[in-house]
Amino acid sequence: MPDIHVQTGIKLERLKNRMKTMAQIGATDKGGVSRLALTEEDRKARKLFIQWMQELGLTTRVDDLGNIYGRLEGIDPKASPVLTGSHLDSVPKGGKFDGTLGVLAALEAVETIKEKGIKPLRSIEIVSFTNEEGARFTPQMLGSGVIAGKFTKDYVYGRKDAEGLLFKEELERIGFMGCPENRITCANSFVELHIEQGPILEAEEKSIGVVEGIAGFYWLKLKVSGQSDHSGSTPMNMRKDSLVAASSIITDIYQWASERKDGLVATVGQIQAFPGIINAIPGETVFTLDIRHADPEKLEEAVSEATSIIQQSSADVTITEIGSNPPVRFSKEVTSLIEESCKDANVSYRKIISGAGHDAMYMNNITETAMIFVPSTNGKSHCEEEHTAYPDIEKGANVLYLTLWKLANR
Amino acid sequence: MPDIHVQTGIKLERLKNRMKTMAQIGATDKGGVSRLALTEEDRKARKLFIQWMQELGLTTRVDDLGNIYGRLEGIDPKASPVLTGSHLDSVPKGGKFDGTLGVLAALEAVETIKEKGIKPLRSIEIVSFTNEEGARFTPQMLGSGVIAGKFTKDYVYGRKDAEGLLFKEELERIGFMGCPENRITCANSFVELHIEQGPILEAEEKSIGVVEGIAGFYWLKLKVSGQSDHSGSTPMNMRKDSLVAASSIITDIYQWASERKDGLVATVGQIQAFPGIINAIPGETVFTLDIRHADPEKLEEAVSEATSIIQQSSADVTITEIGSNPPVRFSKEVTSLIEESCKDANVSYRKIISGAGHDAMYMNNITETAMIFVPSTNGKSHCEEEHTAYPDIEKGANVLYLTLWKLANR
Repeated sequence: MPDIHVQTGIKLERLKNRMKTMAQIGATDKGGVSRLALTEEDRKARKLFIQWMQELGLTTRVDDLGNIYGRLEGIDPKASPVLTGSHLDSVPKGGKFDGTLGVLAALEAVETIKEKGIKPLRSIEIVSFTNEEGARFTPQMLGSGVIAGKFTKDYVYGRKDAEGLLFKEELERIGFMGCPENRITCANSFVELHIEQGPILEAEEKSIGVVEGIAGFYWLKLKVSGQSDHSGSTPMNMRKDSLVAASSIITDIYQWASERKDGLVATVGQIQAFPGIINAIPGETVFTLDIRHADPEKLEEAVSEATSIIQQSSADVTITEIGSNPPVRFSKEVTSLIEESCKDANVSYRKIISGAGHDAMYMNNITETAMIFVPSTNGKSHCEEEHTAYPDIEKGANVLYLTLWKLANR
Repeated sequence: MPDIHVQTGIKLERLKNRMKTMAQIGATDKGGVSRLALTEEDRKARKLFIQWMQELGLTTRVDDLGNIYGRLEGIDPKASPVLTGSHLDSVPKGGKFDGTLGVLAALEAVETIKEKGIKPLRSIEIVSFTNEEGARFTPQMLGSGVIAGKFTKDYVYGRKDAEGLLFKEELERIGFMGCPENRITCANSFVELHIEQGPILEAEEKSIGVVEGIAGFYWLKLKVSGQSDHSGSTPMNMRKDSLVAASSIITDIYQWASERKDGLVATVGQIQAFPGIINAIPGETVFTLDIRHADPEKLEEAVSEATSIIQQSSADVTITEIGSNPPVRFSKEVTSLIEESCKDANVSYRKIISGAGHDAMYMNNITETAMIFVPSTNGKSHCEEEHTAYPDIEKGANVLYLTLWKLANR
């Protein structure tokens, strides 16, 4: 490791200005951003990001998924690079921070290194992944998913948006179809700075979350069958009300998950009752159940407990799995370096598990990975009110900068 | 009263054949009927009904709401007539019996009177009301509603269907715009035979329900406000889940209504959670509550009890009334005559309250009114499986015939 003492020193004003400039692309009336993947807004954001990297003297390239890279050459150009970044796409009426902060904080960290006239052993590459949100092309994280071998390129190229437009054609249309040779293949490590999207850091007054992993999830669909009858002419004791049965299951599941107190979360997000008219007893009620836990065994155990709670219901319930992902455990070495950086920068932190998925989840498959969280005001994200206080952003960017320096000099 | 002894004697085969012929108009694949008001199917059904009445020598007429009448002249043409009938329109994919049975059983009763060569003191008029179901033009019972002074003609003429087509223009288009002079203005009484649309008669093995009134209802809309957060990153103890709060209210309301055991019914028929995605805690949940009781004081009491149950919830709930109708008490004299007729015909019966609305509800405002119910198999109606066994239909038509004779000779 080069014998250079690195101190905190990112320039918040510069980062803040870039955040604000970027937020104008796809800006909504209420202070949010609509910048869906491979749209005109995404194209503009990509162009601006590349321009900023080039102004900084980074070597930029685009791969065949539209993932964008900018490289700061290290002392040893042959050593595998340290990777950092996130994504520039948003959900419809999303926030200014989700994704964008990770990309621009990476740029700020690299600019700080350059500005100090220091040079890391390994090269550092900034990356912005394509279609992280999955808001336009499902599923989420298509760009990092191909890099990590989760999806084939043909699968991703064939994804269609709600209007039937193809991923591949949209990628070509906005001028971001790059070369397969440009993909990152061999990284030393990956660090992603991101907003927490939850209330924990704010509630505990911590500025940084050292993210040790991502909770695994099961997504279940439950169909409760009863009998649809006229609401006026069917006595209470002669009903088979599927919505009443579903409501009882929902409260039982909530109580069970709340009492576990081991980090388990369980959520019913969607519900539909049929026929869904005011004067008919619902004959069928369908709802989703999202169960998450950071520990693989506890996740399996939770799904089995939830299933048995559901089956204890006197109603006729069928359960279908509609998706799942095992928990992800990040690199202990990288999280230790992040923790060290928090101490170096003298910022408050706690270890945390991400409940949401991120590109880092897939990158963890191919390299040593971890994440840095900054607090979300009121725990809000994916909405126009999404916010992170700039003092926290400054701390987050400094921790990222310190961590990158450590990783790049390992 | 003319000194003629009347016995039961409707001809089931004739009624059955007419029911089957009528069921072909708007027939669905699965044995139901789609015959929405003022459609081509309704036009055909109306034409056939008028043809049958004219073949029987009745004097037919149509009023300015499209209500159709057929008159059997009594001994005293100046005496106010006895009215009977129901409606020919259906809900989409509805049943063959709802409405149609009341119209064709009335025709069968009148044909039986004619066939026996007897003549009642008062004239008997059969009526088929326009748009009872409210399935095409809301609200329900537009034809009888104007007759009873519940709606103005202009209001009804201005009602639009889902495609924006006007009631008035559709009435003219199908050729059923009649004269205001043809409306019924002064009736001696009104009796409507109808399917129960509930499970009580079948469960108690009774062939006839002597309907003493119609339950009043309150329709409420409840909005539960919580906070929408990410399902993965929000710990259980930091949630404000509006759907969990709503579920708890739904189970409480169900338990309360079930325990009252005084004829009260309470139903949640519609529910929506927002944003309504699998991985977000619902920040807002909206649902409807339909509360019915036959007794006006108990209905008010029930609404106040329900409101207090809802307000006991720790959640933030707003309640809006979206509709209500007070309970209707039918004529004791008419229900007594129906009861007598059941005894005369030697059929099993019980007194019953209708949970559903009917044209008789409005007719009760202008004349002595009651209804005769026949059982619904499995309590089903407004669906293709809707069914009433023909032996019960025969009993119902005989009771209607006997009751009309009694009323027309009062």
